[in-house]
Amino acid sequence: MAPSDGMSYAPMGKPAPVCAPGDFVVAAVGLDHGHIYGMCNGLVEAGAELRLVYDPDPAKVAALCERFPGARPAASEEEVLEDASVQLVASAAVPADRCGVGLRAMDHGKDFFVDKPPLTTLEQLAAARAKVAETSLKYGVYFSERLHVESAVFAGQLVEQGAIGRVVQVIGMGPHRLNAPSRPAWSFDRERFGGILCDIGSHQVEQFLFYTGAVDAEVTSSRVANYAHKEHPAFEDFGDCTLVGDNGASGYFRVDWFTPDGLGNWGDGRTFLLGTEGYIELRKYIDVARDPAGDQVYLVDQQGEHHYSVGGQVGYPFFGRFVLDCLERTELSMTQEHAFKAAEICIAAQMAARRVEQ
Amino acid sequence: MAPSDGMSYAPMGKPAPVCAPGDFVVAAVGLDHGHIYGMCNGLVEAGAELRLVYDPDPAKVAALCERFPGARPAASEEEVLEDASVQLVASAAVPADRCGVGLRAMDHGKDFFVDKPPLTTLEQLAAARAKVAETSLKYGVYFSERLHVESAVFAGQLVEQGAIGRVVQVIGMGPHRLNAPSRPAWSFDRERFGGILCDIGSHQVEQFLFYTGAVDAEVTSSRVANYAHKEHPAFEDFGDCTLVGDNGASGYFRVDWFTPDGLGNWGDGRTFLLGTEGYIELRKYIDVARDPAGDQVYLVDQQGEHHYSVGGQVGYPFFGRFVLDCLERTELSMTQEHAFKAAEICIAAQMAARRVEQ
Repeated sequence: MAPSDGMSYAPMGKPAPVCAPGDFVVAAVGLDHGHIYGMCNGLVEAGAELRLVYDPDPAKVAALCERFPGARPAASEEEVLEDASVQLVASAAVPADRCGVGLRAMDHGKDFFVDKPPLTTLEQLAAARAKVAETSLKYGVYFSERLHVESAVFAGQLVEQGAIGRVVQVIGMGPHRLNAPSRPAWSFDRERFGGILCDIGSHQVEQFLFYTGAVDAEVTSSRVANYAHKEHPAFEDFGDCTLVGDNGASGYFRVDWFTPDGLGNWGDGRTFLLGTEGYIELRKYIDVARDPAGDQVYLVDQQGEHHYSVGGQVGYPFFGRFVLDCLERTELSMTQEHAFKAAEICIAAQMAARRVEQ
Repeated sequence: MAPSDGMSYAPMGKPAPVCAPGDFVVAAVGLDHGHIYGMCNGLVEAGAELRLVYDPDPAKVAALCERFPGARPAASEEEVLEDASVQLVASAAVPADRCGVGLRAMDHGKDFFVDKPPLTTLEQLAAARAKVAETSLKYGVYFSERLHVESAVFAGQLVEQGAIGRVVQVIGMGPHRLNAPSRPAWSFDRERFGGILCDIGSHQVEQFLFYTGAVDAEVTSSRVANYAHKEHPAFEDFGDCTLVGDNGASGYFRVDWFTPDGLGNWGDGRTFLLGTEGYIELRKYIDVARDPAGDQVYLVDQQGEHHYSVGGQVGYPFFGRFVLDCLERTELSMTQEHAFKAAEICIAAQMAARRVEQ
């Protein structure tokens, strides 16, 4: 078996429906990124019914339908959009194409739930903001590295409880396994994937805003590089960024495609939350050479050192809240502005990035 | 007992003299920082004889002399400088005063070995460079967080062996316990300690240059803050910095004074070396909630995940090499230019730092 990579990361939780069968019908359009599986898992566990699936590639459609019995192939995107029973369209199309799917879905009165990055340009962002304002529909974003990671959810609860005081800094490390032969061509084309800071950096920006409670942030420095994959000249295998939140909190993140084959998972994702009264480290997907299980939370406070292994203990509350938000027109799972702001900042970081050569 | 802090960090290794007793006579002048103990330990284990000790505070002198039998108090700095038997002066004076001690020592024909930061202004740096050029004497620097940490030494060996390919990035985290009541007034005065990026940041800059093999680096962003110690308005409790080496390598470090009381050591220092063929993490002083012993090295390469607990296994080769460098007028322990360059970059980072308010 090929080493795992992030594209096949699709956590499953415990079913916890927030609505009755048939109350919330969704469709999937654009299956380019494997995240669509995690997105559908989350929605279906929360009570949604996945009814229709469309992608130009029938093999991708067949595979998703097989995973979700009851889902059936649609002949075209139009068929999905014209189906009045579909309340939400989920999409993991190629990043540059996601906004287009979303605008069309909203034009047909449907909420939208999209893989990160939710869009790749400021023009798309302006169009998405305008469409949300026009329709009052949702452009929800699957920031999987927080929403679908129990340790990340738990960290949010600890911060909310004041376990480390004020969060003054967040450091995120988002290494990913490239597994180049398995990846489609768009993965190597900056215009299509949006650039490394826009793409996998979007997780990090969102986490910075979330954990620090900042509403906005300034990109104070950013850079990208292609250190070791010169055979893909439009690729970026490294990026990093510093941020300052509107509340004074500092942020730094690094994203890269250098996960070595010897790691027992696709990436040794870490998050460090530095507080005035303690700090938290998340070893999200693995505890290197200590434990193959992820979701390891380390908390140090004024009293002592604490280790929590939270896999299977916390769940993924986002999805039920999001389904309810769609049904009840609330914003309890995540505000629209938070999702758009994360997108805006990661695009700003990408646009401002210095390209490091050598 | 008060919680430990970095000022009392003074590792002891195994005696491994590189010269005969009396071949290399040293003196200590300026004992403000407890690092002087680590510095003297290292030199004496390498064969040096600590003969004279001077500080305006007799209690500090007495304490150091007690720790190193054979050492005796000097009545003045002048007595040390005029003693022709003294070949090297070691100093951990207040950072802003260190260069002055060094210039006077070199004016009296003695090599100089100084705690980090070796100096605090560009004017001092120019004077030190000029004095070295004039005298061919040494202005050596005790970058303890690499030179006196076995895991850090071991990481250098791994990198040299090519264990992780090309080092494309270094992330350093240098948290420290403040333990404010125990600290002298100069610790809170930016002009005296040099600023957080100049002071504890100097370790990080030096490690970036060392592990990446960069000869020079550009500061691409830096900032400082005083998030939670407003009662000391001239203090900085947080700083961070991004670097680009002249070989294209990227660097980031964070330094802070937020180690919570519950940590079993003065600081959870970490170093992450990202290579094209693997990565290394150092948990230098503690392995939080896993192992109170530091010097834990985690290596992931293309073959697997590896954990090395290297305390007591590696030693501190710098000191023997440095003593030989002094005796034989070589530069095998560390080049003068490397030490000065690290100082220059951390001063540049400090001068360019944006001050984050709130």
